[in-house]
Amino acid sequence: MDDVSNSTVSATSTPREIRMAARAGRISSTTRGLARGFVQAGVVALPKDLANDFLAFCQKNPGPCPLIEVTETGRTGKCAADGDLRTDVPGYNLYRDGELVDQGHDIGMSYGKDLVWFAIGCSYSFEYLLEEAGIALKGLKEGHGNPLFVTKIMCERAGAFHGPMVVSMRPVPNEKVGLASCLSGKLPLGHGAPVHVGDPSLLGITDTGKPDYGMPVEIGEDEMPMFWACSVTPQAIAKERRLPLMITQRPGQMFLTDYKVLSMMV
Amino acid sequence: MDDVSNSTVSATSTPREIRMAARAGRISSTTRGLARGFVQAGVVALPKDLANDFLAFCQKNPGPCPLIEVTETGRTGKCAADGDLRTDVPGYNLYRDGELVDQGHDIGMSYGKDLVWFAIGCSYSFEYLLEEAGIALKGLKEGHGNPLFVTKIMCERAGAFHGPMVVSMRPVPNEKVGLASCLSGKLPLGHGAPVHVGDPSLLGITDTGKPDYGMPVEIGEDEMPMFWACSVTPQAIAKERRLPLMITQRPGQMFLTDYKVLSMMV
Repeated sequence: MDDVSNSTVSATSTPREIRMAARAGRISSTTRGLARGFVQAGVVALPKDLANDFLAFCQKNPGPCPLIEVTETGRTGKCAADGDLRTDVPGYNLYRDGELVDQGHDIGMSYGKDLVWFAIGCSYSFEYLLEEAGIALKGLKEGHGNPLFVTKIMCERAGAFHGPMVVSMRPVPNEKVGLASCLSGKLPLGHGAPVHVGDPSLLGITDTGKPDYGMPVEIGEDEMPMFWACSVTPQAIAKERRLPLMITQRPGQMFLTDYKVLSMMV
Repeated sequence: MDDVSNSTVSATSTPREIRMAARAGRISSTTRGLARGFVQAGVVALPKDLANDFLAFCQKNPGPCPLIEVTETGRTGKCAADGDLRTDVPGYNLYRDGELVDQGHDIGMSYGKDLVWFAIGCSYSFEYLLEEAGIALKGLKEGHGNPLFVTKIMCERAGAFHGPMVVSMRPVPNEKVGLASCLSGKLPLGHGAPVHVGDPSLLGITDTGKPDYGMPVEIGEDEMPMFWACSVTPQAIAKERRLPLMITQRPGQMFLTDYKVLSMMV
């Protein structure tokens, strides 16, 4: 099934190569920067009753959860012809009653029966636009993800889903904030425009050096912290609401779709 | 020629009503907020030799000087069928050797012979978009313009035209910076996306309470200062380069075009 070794996945890999490598358990890093130019997706799997609520949640909260595809088998159709959300993510998180109880690349198959699978947009998709426009992104070359923070912004409630928005933070030079906003705003499938620029305390973030997920990055004197809604939001809500069962991607380890970023701009 | 009294110009006036009122010398206020939804323009008039340089300057600096129309008679064609840049601006500035030597509503006719007239874009045009999107703009209801600052950003040189960019500043709530960037970015004729967001000192602005033109506005704790390129830039360059002759609009007193803002979005 797979002829991609760990060392060969890169920015120039095809999305299918990334999916096959992930399926074989051969990607331990973030997918940030891999298969450049393609839309990346977070994954959420839920029992049917919760899935209905989550579908409504995505509709009400297109910022953190821009819906790319829903599938009751796990197999994707439109966004990746031969893809499978149960296997093609490098690493999964398993939440039970809101607690993270297991992690691994084979969790989707082990625990994912009778679940409904969702692919939701990821900010790595618009990072391609920022890079191509000459906006350097910290940590990308080093293979790091972005620091993520649970904020005091509350999402719109939908049934069992109610809780705080998670955001990713990127320091951007002051003169590039406009451009970064415009470009990301043209990609709703990548969370769209930032939800906040500047003072982190207004989001309830007390220390940007201590993210809730990922590693911190320095904010330079000639930079502004920019905050985008993040597809890790459902995980924060699973914790908050102690949802009985949810499988997600591990933060930073995404599903690669066959959608070209440029084809999804509005 | 004119049946519009001073008290009747308003947000719901037509552009032609504003032009006629200006032509009659009946507008002493800013045009900010008048004839909502229409593109407003700054005006620059120059002797032919300087006009050639300025045309090149506009081409090289579409941020501060997005070119709407050039006319050797002053009469506009496309942007306002019966308009005249020599008469239809509420107030003009006359610069000689870089010095502001006269102001008034009839300067265009008194001193404007044998000049080439330019209409260039103005940020009041995108303010309509921001307002319609629910972003409150300070000073607008009070009939104030925005504070303008001469920055240390140098424009691209074109012949005699070489000097600093002037910017307008608006405080915008942190969570609206992305939206304000996106919307203004979709209106290149209104200067496009901001050139800078945040720390004013990086632009060489030492005190936002002391603008070079206009009145200061307060920056709230939950707001970011956003800076857009400004059509007053040619006036700062006239001063800097001591250009022999230039007529412009007075800051805040613009020419109303018949272009709908929504028809000019990209």
